[in-house]
Amino acid sequence: MIEDKTPEMQGPVCPVPVAHNEQIVIGHGSGGKMTSNLINKSFLPQFDNPVLNEGNDAGVITLDSRLRLAISTDSHVVSPLFFPGGDIGKLAVCGTVNDVAMMGATPLYLTAGFIIEEGLNLSVLNQIIVSMKDAAQEANVEIIAGDTKVVQRGYGDGLYINTSGIGVFKHNFDISGSSAKPGDLVILSGSIGDHGMAVLTARNELGFEVDIKSDIAPLNHLVSSMLDTSEKIHVLRDPTRGGVASTLNEIASQSHICIELDETSIPVHPHVNAICEMLGFDPLYVANEGKLIAIVARDDADKILGKMHKTQYGKEAVIVGEVKESPQDRVLMRTSIGSLRVVETLSGELLPRIC
Amino acid sequence: MIEDKTPEMQGPVCPVPVAHNEQIVIGHGSGGKMTSNLINKSFLPQFDNPVLNEGNDAGVITLDSRLRLAISTDSHVVSPLFFPGGDIGKLAVCGTVNDVAMMGATPLYLTAGFIIEEGLNLSVLNQIIVSMKDAAQEANVEIIAGDTKVVQRGYGDGLYINTSGIGVFKHNFDISGSSAKPGDLVILSGSIGDHGMAVLTARNELGFEVDIKSDIAPLNHLVSSMLDTSEKIHVLRDPTRGGVASTLNEIASQSHICIELDETSIPVHPHVNAICEMLGFDPLYVANEGKLIAIVARDDADKILGKMHKTQYGKEAVIVGEVKESPQDRVLMRTSIGSLRVVETLSGELLPRIC
Repeated sequence: MIEDKTPEMQGPVCPVPVAHNEQIVIGHGSGGKMTSNLINKSFLPQFDNPVLNEGNDAGVITLDSRLRLAISTDSHVVSPLFFPGGDIGKLAVCGTVNDVAMMGATPLYLTAGFIIEEGLNLSVLNQIIVSMKDAAQEANVEIIAGDTKVVQRGYGDGLYINTSGIGVFKHNFDISGSSAKPGDLVILSGSIGDHGMAVLTARNELGFEVDIKSDIAPLNHLVSSMLDTSEKIHVLRDPTRGGVASTLNEIASQSHICIELDETSIPVHPHVNAICEMLGFDPLYVANEGKLIAIVARDDADKILGKMHKTQYGKEAVIVGEVKESPQDRVLMRTSIGSLRVVETLSGELLPRIC
Repeated sequence: MIEDKTPEMQGPVCPVPVAHNEQIVIGHGSGGKMTSNLINKSFLPQFDNPVLNEGNDAGVITLDSRLRLAISTDSHVVSPLFFPGGDIGKLAVCGTVNDVAMMGATPLYLTAGFIIEEGLNLSVLNQIIVSMKDAAQEANVEIIAGDTKVVQRGYGDGLYINTSGIGVFKHNFDISGSSAKPGDLVILSGSIGDHGMAVLTARNELGFEVDIKSDIAPLNHLVSSMLDTSEKIHVLRDPTRGGVASTLNEIASQSHICIELDETSIPVHPHVNAICEMLGFDPLYVANEGKLIAIVARDDADKILGKMHKTQYGKEAVIVGEVKESPQDRVLMRTSIGSLRVVETLSGELLPRIC
């Protein structure tokens, strides 16, 4: 029984001071500065706990005083549902598998929550489910819990999928965004910007056709072979929303170091480069879904690269930069003409609904 | 590089035979027959694994040959976001805490994935986050991983929240929908239909005001005290979407037994009853978010009830029926005039977007 009207019926009571009528805008989902502000100002102060506060791709917990697990969650709202190289189902599986793998853990189990818009063709849903199954098989994970909700027409966009992932640690290395050390080298597993540009071309807004395929892939087997090769992998991160630039800035801030990139060494597929130039995008800010950044001890870098080159998703791995002591919390880029420029985190939004 | 147009560009290829143009309708999210058909025909054949196939509120996995965990996921799309007694944030935390608890596990950690529609007032989001924090504190769980996505106006409904939960087993009882045994008694923890009717009244479509408050609550402490009292709790389930009727039908099918309910013993709040009568709803099909059904050995029922009565959310617990051998897979109800009628699973949809 309620005695009075609940407060929400008279308009929400604001527990955190925010500008009157401040609203969520698309940029809050960019993976860049605005997302990070929203997380730091709205979520972290309330959900405050050491695991979440670490700010890594997955939370690490210890159960029963012995068993360390990495736990991750990601909601996928990519538009359109299908694009060259994949679909929302493959994305949902690989995205979460990769977040768990980036902690150095072996992903084992996923959950899947579906928000379906009324009117979605059942054959489309079934195709996406098959795609999830295939990706899960490749990654060697099982989907062990699920949920299905349906919303009315006009309150969704066909299908949104949340996946959460659970992984166990087979090694006891301290892999984290805060573990980069001066002297370390920065490895990138391959060309950048493919996913973002593939989704963009699938939107048919370019007015011409381009041969770009998303790089979506489960990276856990690649990570596993790297961890078997060296104990000196300090940071692993997949540069998704916000791209390589935003991911490296996160790491620079977490580790309080400077990352200096060498522009000429960063691989960009020629078609991706062409579209980026045409549209005024910088590939450094475009999302990837099958690439990783590894920050590793200099003396093990060659050994790790060698191992990566023998794997399906690490064939084109290259060293793209190094970690320096200062200026702290900064990413710099040595350009092709030899000058140094600051690489900022993405501000605003480049391409909404890319993952 | 893609050589040809991907198949999805020419319309999706259907991997599972379905009627041409068969579409998802609101009833697929009801929690009743249509949801169960969708799960059985589309999801389970692909995601096929013993854990998922069990069909319980959470999947149970064993890590490192020793540690049993219960894992659950739920996407929350309730409309409106605020209703008497709670909001989508409290719902998201309690819903998943309860799913884990219904396996007999102790929920410890949650993940939270937010899909926010552009234009949501930041103060509304903040209020919901505080509500999640409060519910998590009451349930004694921590939110250890999160994700935020933003969709454009017209592609969401303010806010959808997915929560996944992880719990550990402190007891080694085999609690499952398939463990009900003839002779067992059926306990219901309190009055039914409050949540569904509270959300309905918040939609302001009734044309009058009623004093009904959602029963949303985290039930893990109640479950924990029950498990400390008896080893003979065979089934625990929270009757959410589809209500008590659909939940009991699920159990009857999983355990291949008959559940016989006593109509006069089922508690329904007078205001809930009045609205249900007016609108032609049967409270047995209306969603609850703070109630549980326990199927327990007859000789321990009084002891368990006694313990429940001492707790905040079990004060009004009553025995509402018993388990019989046949007719298998059926729920029957002894009505107030002494006749027996079949209680079917919900078919179609009663109230969309209730959770």
